[in-house]
Amino acid sequence: MAVDTHRIRIETQGNSQVIDLTGAVAQALGRGGIQNGAVTVFVIGSTAGVTTTEFEPGLAESDLKEAMEKLAPEGGSYEHEKTWNDDNGHSHVRASLVGPSLTVPLVDGRLTLGRWQQIVLLDFDTRPRRREIVVQVLGE
Amino acid sequence: MAVDTHRIRIETQGNSQVIDLTGAVAQALGRGGIQNGAVTVFVIGSTAGVTTTEFEPGLAESDLKEAMEKLAPEGGSYEHEKTWNDDNGHSHVRASLVGPSLTVPLVDGRLTLGRWQQIVLLDFDTRPRRREIVVQVLGE
Amino acid sequence: MAVDTHRIRIETQGNSQVIDLTGAVAQALGRGGIQNGAVTVFVIGSTAGVTTTEFEPGLAESDLKEAMEKLAPEGGSYEHEKTWNDDNGHSHVRASLVGPSLTVPLVDGRLTLGRWQQIVLLDFDTRPRRREIVVQVLGE
Repeated sequence: MAVDTHRIRIETQGNSQVIDLTGAVAQALGRGGIQNGAVTVFVIGSTAGVTTTEFEPGLAESDLKEAMEKLAPEGGSYEHEKTWNDDNGHSHVRASLVGPSLTVPLVDGRLTLGRWQQIVLLDFDTRPRRREIVVQVLGE
Repeated sequence: MAVDTHRIRIETQGNSQVIDLTGAVAQALGRGGIQNGAVTVFVIGSTAGVTTTEFEPGLAESDLKEAMEKLAPEGGSYEHEKTWNDDNGHSHVRASLVGPSLTVPLVDGRLTLGRWQQIVLLDFDTRPRRREIVVQVLGE
Repeated sequence: MAVDTHRIRIETQGNSQVIDLTGAVAQALGRGGIQNGAVTVFVIGSTAGVTTTEFEPGLAESDLKEAMEKLAPEGGSYEHEKTWNDDNGHSHVRASLVGPSLTVPLVDGRLTLGRWQQIVLLDFDTRPRRREIVVQVLGE
């Protein structure tokens, strides 16, 4: 049994951008030797989340964003913004609801994702960011 | 330390059906010898999610569904549906928000769930599906 | 490789109270010797959730609560309440959506949280509770 920790660094645009991380996660795993175990994908920061979706433009560019807009509208009134003279209250709320971590089993060197299921980062911030995602695998 | 991976296969009806997986997860764990560690429950596919709830008809058949309907209404307009001539845009959005994975500690052979807390699959798709859930335990 | 399991016990007020668990989690980890691995934070019970947020009064006391109120209003109609003559239908729905578990990588003895990212318990119940949170670390 061993622990391998990898880091993925990407430039994002924000505004509920959906970014497919599946290839980068698989590539990181390929650099270690663990074949069976649990892979945790964790985004550092409090205005982004990690989940899975079918990565296609309809969901990634429109539908997920629209649901988020219902939950925490960009133009809403946020105490966070008043306190800090900031504009990303909705980004924080959305991020907390999606959550920063995801755990995917690894079996015989492969993530147990469905054919139409990709690991995605949702960046809710209001400006471009340099994001760091931790990919950690425990197993053998 | 070891890794045990099990699979649960179930027939579902969809339409935000809530299915209690607790017994099947416990049964799978009983087939391995790990007594202490972390149990990851992961649903394969992008129109279902895994979480916990008190499994009783009020929540399982009405209340959870109604909240989901607010977040991503079944009769809403989805780019995913226009692109793919499909009817499950809301299913995908709901699944991404709930998330496909859950991790529960295992202590002395028992999941650390509350008395009124069950592990549930939420199947958001619009038709019956044959679902596969991966139950993976790391520990000793 | 080893498994260390710790328990945090706190008194909560409920009503979507947001409680910073970061210090207590770090303290629990300090009692074990694991330096690298995965930390699972799991709340026992079906009316609370665990996630991360920037822990400041605007988000913690107002903005998160307001989003939850949209998703599952406190004054809404819940079958759970009719069946059990209870008042916390909204608490259950909110808890299932946030989810009871979070996994954070531990690298060289430190949680890989962002500077403005804290681990929080969201207690959605309608009365004060004595909560138990399981903090489990797998690693070496």
